[in-house]
Order: sequence, then C-alpha cells, then structure tokens
Amino acid sequence: MKIYRVDLNSDLGESFGSYKLGMDEQVIKHVTSANIACGWHAGDPSVMDSTIKIAKREGTAIGAHPGFPDLMGFGRRNMAIAPEEIKLYVQYQLGALLAFAKANGTRIQHLKAHGALYNTAAQDYKLARALAEAVYQVDKDIIFVGLANSQMIKAGQEIGLKVANEVFADRAYNADGTLVSRKLEGAVIHDAELAISRVIRMVKEGKVRTMDGKDIDIKAETICVHGDNPEAVEFTQKIRAKLEAEDVEVTAISNFIK
Amino acid sequence: MKIYRVDLNSDLGESFGSYKLGMDEQVIKHVTSANIACGWHAGDPSVMDSTIKIAKREGTAIGAHPGFPDLMGFGRRNMAIAPEEIKLYVQYQLGALLAFAKANGTRIQHLKAHGALYNTAAQDYKLARALAEAVYQVDKDIIFVGLANSQMIKAGQEIGLKVANEVFADRAYNADGTLVSRKLEGAVIHDAELAISRVIRMVKEGKVRTMDGKDIDIKAETICVHGDNPEAVEFTQKIRAKLEAEDVEVTAISNFIK
Amino acid sequence: MKIYRVDLNSDLGESFGSYKLGMDEQVIKHVTSANIACGWHAGDPSVMDSTIKIAKREGTAIGAHPGFPDLMGFGRRNMAIAPEEIKLYVQYQLGALLAFAKANGTRIQHLKAHGALYNTAAQDYKLARALAEAVYQVDKDIIFVGLANSQMIKAGQEIGLKVANEVFADRAYNADGTLVSRKLEGAVIHDAELAISRVIRMVKEGKVRTMDGKDIDIKAETICVHGDNPEAVEFTQKIRAKLEAEDVEVTAISNFIK
Amino acid sequence: MKIYRVDLNSDLGESFGSYKLGMDEQVIKHVTSANIACGWHAGDPSVMDSTIKIAKREGTAIGAHPGFPDLMGFGRRNMAIAPEEIKLYVQYQLGALLAFAKANGTRIQHLKAHGALYNTAAQDYKLARALAEAVYQVDKDIIFVGLANSQMIKAGQEIGLKVANEVFADRAYNADGTLVSRKLEGAVIHDAELAISRVIRMVKEGKVRTMDGKDIDIKAETICVHGDNPEAVEFTQKIRAKLEAEDVEVTAISNFIK
Repeated sequence: MKIYRVDLNSDLGESFGSYKLGMDEQVIKHVTSANIACGWHAGDPSVMDSTIKIAKREGTAIGAHPGFPDLMGFGRRNMAIAPEEIKLYVQYQLGALLAFAKANGTRIQHLKAHGALYNTAAQDYKLARALAEAVYQVDKDIIFVGLANSQMIKAGQEIGLKVANEVFADRAYNADGTLVSRKLEGAVIHDAELAISRVIRMVKEGKVRTMDGKDIDIKAETICVHGDNPEAVEFTQKIRAKLEAEDVEVTAISNFIK
Repeated sequence: MKIYRVDLNSDLGESFGSYKLGMDEQVIKHVTSANIACGWHAGDPSVMDSTIKIAKREGTAIGAHPGFPDLMGFGRRNMAIAPEEIKLYVQYQLGALLAFAKANGTRIQHLKAHGALYNTAAQDYKLARALAEAVYQVDKDIIFVGLANSQMIKAGQEIGLKVANEVFADRAYNADGTLVSRKLEGAVIHDAELAISRVIRMVKEGKVRTMDGKDIDIKAETICVHGDNPEAVEFTQKIRAKLEAEDVEVTAISNFIK
Repeated sequence: MKIYRVDLNSDLGESFGSYKLGMDEQVIKHVTSANIACGWHAGDPSVMDSTIKIAKREGTAIGAHPGFPDLMGFGRRNMAIAPEEIKLYVQYQLGALLAFAKANGTRIQHLKAHGALYNTAAQDYKLARALAEAVYQVDKDIIFVGLANSQMIKAGQEIGLKVANEVFADRAYNADGTLVSRKLEGAVIHDAELAISRVIRMVKEGKVRTMDGKDIDIKAETICVHGDNPEAVEFTQKIRAKLEAEDVEVTAISNFIK
Repeated sequence: MKIYRVDLNSDLGESFGSYKLGMDEQVIKHVTSANIACGWHAGDPSVMDSTIKIAKREGTAIGAHPGFPDLMGFGRRNMAIAPEEIKLYVQYQLGALLAFAKANGTRIQHLKAHGALYNTAAQDYKLARALAEAVYQVDKDIIFVGLANSQMIKAGQEIGLKVANEVFADRAYNADGTLVSRKLEGAVIHDAELAISRVIRMVKEGKVRTMDGKDIDIKAETICVHGDNPEAVEFTQKIRAKLEAEDVEVTAISNFIK
C-alpha cells in the first residue's frame, strides 16, 4: 500500500508589541510546521521567542517567515527592491530567528517567504533565486517552501536546496498551476468540504481541477492553513482529521523530504 | 620578557540606506576588531554584509554591536526597557549578524553593546546580566566586551563567558573606575600624546591616573578608537604605531583571551 | 444651584495596519473627547483619518495624543530625549493629525501626551514646558490636558494655554496629588462603584481621599476612561449615567474651559 | 518685451538623526523653492524644523516633499500602495510639515512628491489624483508641483489646484514628454553648458529637443536642481547666473503662478 504524507503549515507569531494577532495557541496544536514572522512585516523579538517556545512544547517544526520591510502594510504590498538586496533582507530575518532557535535549543526546519514577497517570487525567477541563495548561504539544510511548481521550487532545486511544494486548500488554480487572483470571482473556495476533498485529491492523486475544468498535475507536500479566527482553526482541525481518515500521515516536511 | 597584547576595536558599519557614516575602509586597516551595527540604532543588511566582507578581506575580527531600537537617536538615548526584553533584542541583532557571518564563511568573535545600552549596562547589573545571557544562550564562544571593571565584566564572568575589558584612550576616569561623564569638564582628553601615553600605561602597568590624581588598577584588553573623521583615523594609526614601538602586540582579543 | 460639568476622555485610534486595538466604535458613543494616537506609538494615517470621521459623526471632540517614537513598546517606556527635541516630536504628530482634521472639515480641541511621555512630563517641568510650547507655537487655542495639579498644568498655564485637569477614576492618589505607582498594591481601584463615587466627589466637592486616608484638593475637569475591553466600555457607560444622575453635565472640555 | 520667470527648486532637509545628507546651507542660497522631506523617506522633526528656519532666513519658499514609508530605500523603490491610502500618507506628511511652518510663523508654498512616488504618479493618473486630492483637502492654496505635462499636472488642474510644471536640466526627454529612463544610455546630460542651454530654451521658447532629435512643447515653470555635492551646488549657481544673464527672472513659483 502506498504511504501518503503531507505537512500542514500555518503563519504564526504575527503579533507585535501590544498588538495581538492570530490564535497561535489553538492552531499550533493542529499543524506540523509553524512559519514564524521575523519582525519586518510582523512579529518582534518577544513574539519570536515565545512562538518558538510554544512550537517546541507542542512538537511543531519551526520555519522562518521573512517579509518585506513594511509593518504598516503587513508585508502584503509589493516593493520594487533589487533581488541582491532582498537576499540580504532574508538573511537578516532568518539569522534573527536562528538566534532564538539556538537560545531555545531547537532548530529551523524551513523558510517560507511571506505575502507579497512570496507571491512575487512565485513568478519572478530572479527574486526566487535570491531567496533560495539567501537560505543556501546561511544553512543548506533548511527546506525551501514555495508555491507548487513555481519559480521558487525551480530556483531552490537548481541551487541545491531541499524544496517543499505548497498547496492551498481554499484557492482556485489556473491551467498553468498558478493561483487564481483574489481579485477574480471564484478565487477563494468557501465550501470547506469541497476544499478538503480537493486537497485530499492533490495529496493522493497529484491532481487538481482548475478554474476552467481541466485536471492538472500538482505536488502537494505542505498545505497552508490559517489560524487567525475560530473558523480557520476549526477548518484546520477538520482537514487534519479527514486527511488522517484517508490514511494520509500528517507530519512535518523534514520527516519525508530528504 | 613579559609579552603585552592588546586589541584595538572600532564601531563600524554605521551607515544606513543612502546615509553614509564613518571612514570604515580607512580605519579598518588599523584596528584588530570591528564592532558592526546590527540595524537597530544604525546599519542595515547591505551595510552589515559589506562590512563583514571588508573585515574578512582585511583580516579584522568581527563583533556584533547591538543597540536600542532608536535609529533617530542613534542608540544614544536611554530607554526604560525590561532586561528580559533587552535580552531578546540583543539575540535578534546578534542572530542577524550571525547570518551574514555564516553566508560569508566567517565567524563572530565578540559582542559589545552600543551607546546608551553600553553605558547603562556598565552600571546596572540586571541589564548587564541580560546582555551576557543573550550571548551565552546563542553562542558560548563569543567574547563579551564591556567597560573595564564594570557590571558587564562581572555579569559575563558569572555566566561563564570569556570577557574582554575595554578602555578608552580619550576619556578621563573616576576613582571607582567609571568614566567621567561627558557633561563634566575634562571628561574628554584632547591631547593625543597624553591619551596615548595613558593607554600604554594601562596596557603595560595596569594603572590609570584618575581625574582627582590617584592611580587605580585597570585591565586594558581592548582599546576603543573611532573612525568617523580623518583625525580619528590618524589617531588610530598613531596609537597603533606607538603601542608596537613599545613592544605591545596589537592583535584581536580572540588571540589572547581564552 | 451650582452647575457641575465634566468631560470624559478616552484613548482611541490605537490600531495600526492589520492590527486592531480597542473598541473605538462602542466607547466613542459614551465619551465627549477622543485622544487620537498620531502614528508614533500607535495609529497610522488610515486609522487617524477614520477615527476623526467616527468622532465627527458621533459629535465627540478630537484631541491629539502624541507619544514616544516606540511602536514596539506602545509608548509606555520612558526615553531619555532632550525636551527641545520632544517639542519637535510633538509638533510633528500634532501637525499630522491637524491635516486630517482639516481634510475632514473639523478641528482639534485638545492635546494630551501618551503613556510614558505623559507620566514623565507630569513630574518633570522642563518636559512639561516643552509639550506646552509645542502646542502654543502651533495653535494657541488647543487645550492642554494634563494630570490634575501636575507640572503639565503649571507649564501650560505659564505659557498661556487653556489647560484641563485630568483625573483617573480607577487610580489611588498620593498625598501630594500624584498617582500611586502601579507597582504598589492598591494603586488600581477595581471596585467600580467605589471608583465612580470617588469621581463624583472629585467633580462636585473637588476632593479625593488619598492612599493614606487624607482628603486633598483636586480639580476634575476631564476623566480618563478606557475602551479596550467590554468591561471598560460598560464602566464608561455606567460612570456617565451616574454623573448625569448626579446632575453633572458630561460635555467636551471646550464647552466649559475658556 | 516679454518677461520670463522661472523657479529653481531643490530637495532639502534630507538628513536624519546622526546622518547628514546634502549641502543645504550652500544650495539654499541659490534656489527659490525648497522641497523639505517629511520624515518618511528622509528627514526628521529636528531636520524639518531647522530646514524651515534656514529657508525662512534665506527667503526661500517652502514646500512639502512627501515620499513612500521607506527610509532604508530613501523613497526610491516603488511600493504597491492603494491610491486612497497614499492620499492619507501624503496628508500625514504635509500636516507634519505644516506644524513646523506654523511654529516658525511661515507658510507652505507647494508640495512635490519624492522619488518613486513622483515617478509613478507622473504616469499613473489614479495615483496623481490621490496626491492632488491630498493637497486640496488640506489647503487649496498650496501649489502642486509635477513633471511637466504629466498626469500630476492633469490631476492637479482637474481638482482645482494651482500647478507648476517641473523640468529637469540634466535629463533627456522622450517624444511624449516623459523623461528617458535612467537605465538607458544618454538619460543623464553630463555637459553642464548643454544642460543650461536646454533649460534656457525650455523657459524662453517652451521647447526641448528629445532623445530622437525632435522638438516638443514643454512648459518650464520650475527647474529641479541638486545640492548633494559641491559640483551640484556650483551647477546651481551657474544655471541661475545664466538664466539671469538671459533676462529670466528667477523667483519662487508663488510669485507668478496664481
């Protein structure tokens, strides 16, 4: 019998100073990898340190989640920054998180870019390459998480990093494997059952039905879920239960990506 | 014959974005340890990376130079931040610099706090302890540089770090070994020859004449020099030449502090 | 019959970017003056603009609420900044809010310093004077709100500003009229009924019972209430109802301070 | 005889904290309008206040020079921010400068966007409109400076603002009146004499020779000059002398744009 494995990842540690964001304590129990903001678009040293402590306690793997230097825009607004400079921005943020990992006697499993940085790098090879180089130069063993089939996956592989293909349960796909823009109707799948069955198909069959009704190949190694509201947490619990009921092992990417 | 050794350190990498500060390229040739700003009171990822590259090229040892989160005040204004939070601020900055050290295939020799953080920690044991813990938890081999005889030296030793006692060539000392406040007349020694002869005495005899005319014990393992103007660079050259003429070996602290 | 009048003020507009803070929409209906954060310790242009729009709609008077440049610490950590520089920081923030007031066809009634800036200026005349000068130079008609009997009130009066004495319903007072430090037991009055009766006495009799059981004079022109949780909003509603039941008119300070 | 008039404007007040930038004291004597950075991409409250004081002393008109929230990139990197949000960012910065103008008993003549904000708004009508609305809502009498013939001029006029067409002495023009991208060879005119003669022609004939050798119409009401190095200051002096020798009155835009 074939063994199916997939990782569930969520963006955590997005609070800042007096500002609380996200139901970290709840969602972290249900995911296998935590993407931790590094202080540029969200997060601060206290939040980074305490999120690592929580992840360690819950046995959730830790990843760096660097973003644009734009706290006011939460890293969601694209910035026209040269790739060679972005590389250094990512190393800065990764290093900062590495310090807290060391101080807490744990390690960083992966790096996943945040927001506009992720979206732009998915399609821009030069930027994707800069992200991959950032990781490679600091620690070759860190897994580079990127949108399935995107420029990030391509760049990571070319540089020699281990990569993890990420899929989105609640998003529609285009024929070329990219996500349908949120500006278009139908981009977000609101039906939880449908979303879950799509994900299960991605994991077990390696296929997804696109917006225009065709089946395309997709590699689902890690699934992005959210933790910023009670419905999101409930969905995460449900998707995990369904995956396990379908004999899919939900486990951190470092347990199956070598 | 007794062998005398001392380190010359300077604050470098203090430029930010389009703003240039300091004659780094000039002064780095004459010092043995570079304290590199980490982006909070000065410096940015590009500056940190390029300063490490220059230091590596010139064979100058590298140190982290964390400060308060106050770019507008250049880290020179005290902030009433809890020691446990300062610890995390220092780890964040140290980690960021560590990433660039790794990416450039080099290592961090020491950490020295900047500006108001240094001055306050020199006299506040709890804060000094927080700084020392920050270093110890991230990398026990990093040397902790602090004002000679200060609470930083005490805290570093108690925690189990290697420490380096720092002296200032151009500053007057009080009877208790603290620096005379810059607000008082006579606090800064403007006569270069006098400053140099005082430093040579600190290194070779372990003594310094205080403001009120007494001799006190002082341990001079590293001497702070400046590089922000041509006179400062000239002074640095001169102090190094004089030290060497007096058979004092000028070498990075990691070569003699074990 | 003597007419009693008092203002209820609350800190609003403290959200930032994706971070939401405070139940502004609820509490603003019950207060007569809104202190709006100006982007340095909290708030951003969008939040400032929308808070002014809400205040205008609800008929609540608007005030600037400047703080230290410390978003990570929410302006609650003291910073050793020279008074002449603080003056300029306050003018910058006041001016920014003035632009939104103009753009929305309304005006700024008052200015009240935030957090550590307020607390320090209450006891430090030079700092209090810098705040008052900041206001006076930009707009002499803006009312300067400060802790009752504090250095702020003194400085504001000396400069020629209209001032408003602020009292706290839920805080204990020392014999000299200062607030009991939050670090001491009994500093915060948790009994809502007691807090309200104390405030009514302050307003109608001009007296308050101190921590050590004595009665002192106090001028209560504006009462600080909170809006960051449902209990706080409920308390605000209750205190307003009780004041009105006691024939105290609750109205913006500009309606009775001339 | 026809009277020709033109304004010379320069970006000033770009220092920040300990970082000094620009030869403000020198260049301000030769220009008639100063564009003052407002603290987001450059400048801080102290710099804003002191630059206004210098401009007032020298009789140079004052303008707001708002930019993207990107100190590290000096406002030169485009950011994908919604126009309605940019409007508020510009009002915030304009208001801050207005406070210093008021405190110093002077007024703001104009507003000119900085760097990437200027370049993008020159071609993006929605963004240009947002800038113009920002100004109009705060103070209808402020002159809106934009690239000659650009979307900014169009938007400013449609909204009902007074506008000033800006030209660049040292830049090549495309056939459609836009500036040749700095990425292309020949974009910058290094020959000072040629640059000056081109400007004089723009002012007196309203024509400029484009990159591909055609003459196009151009309205030159204000000329952008630089002050960040001794050559730039010398060029500014020279261009002013030549303009005056050609009977062109060099005077602030508010003296001839009504």
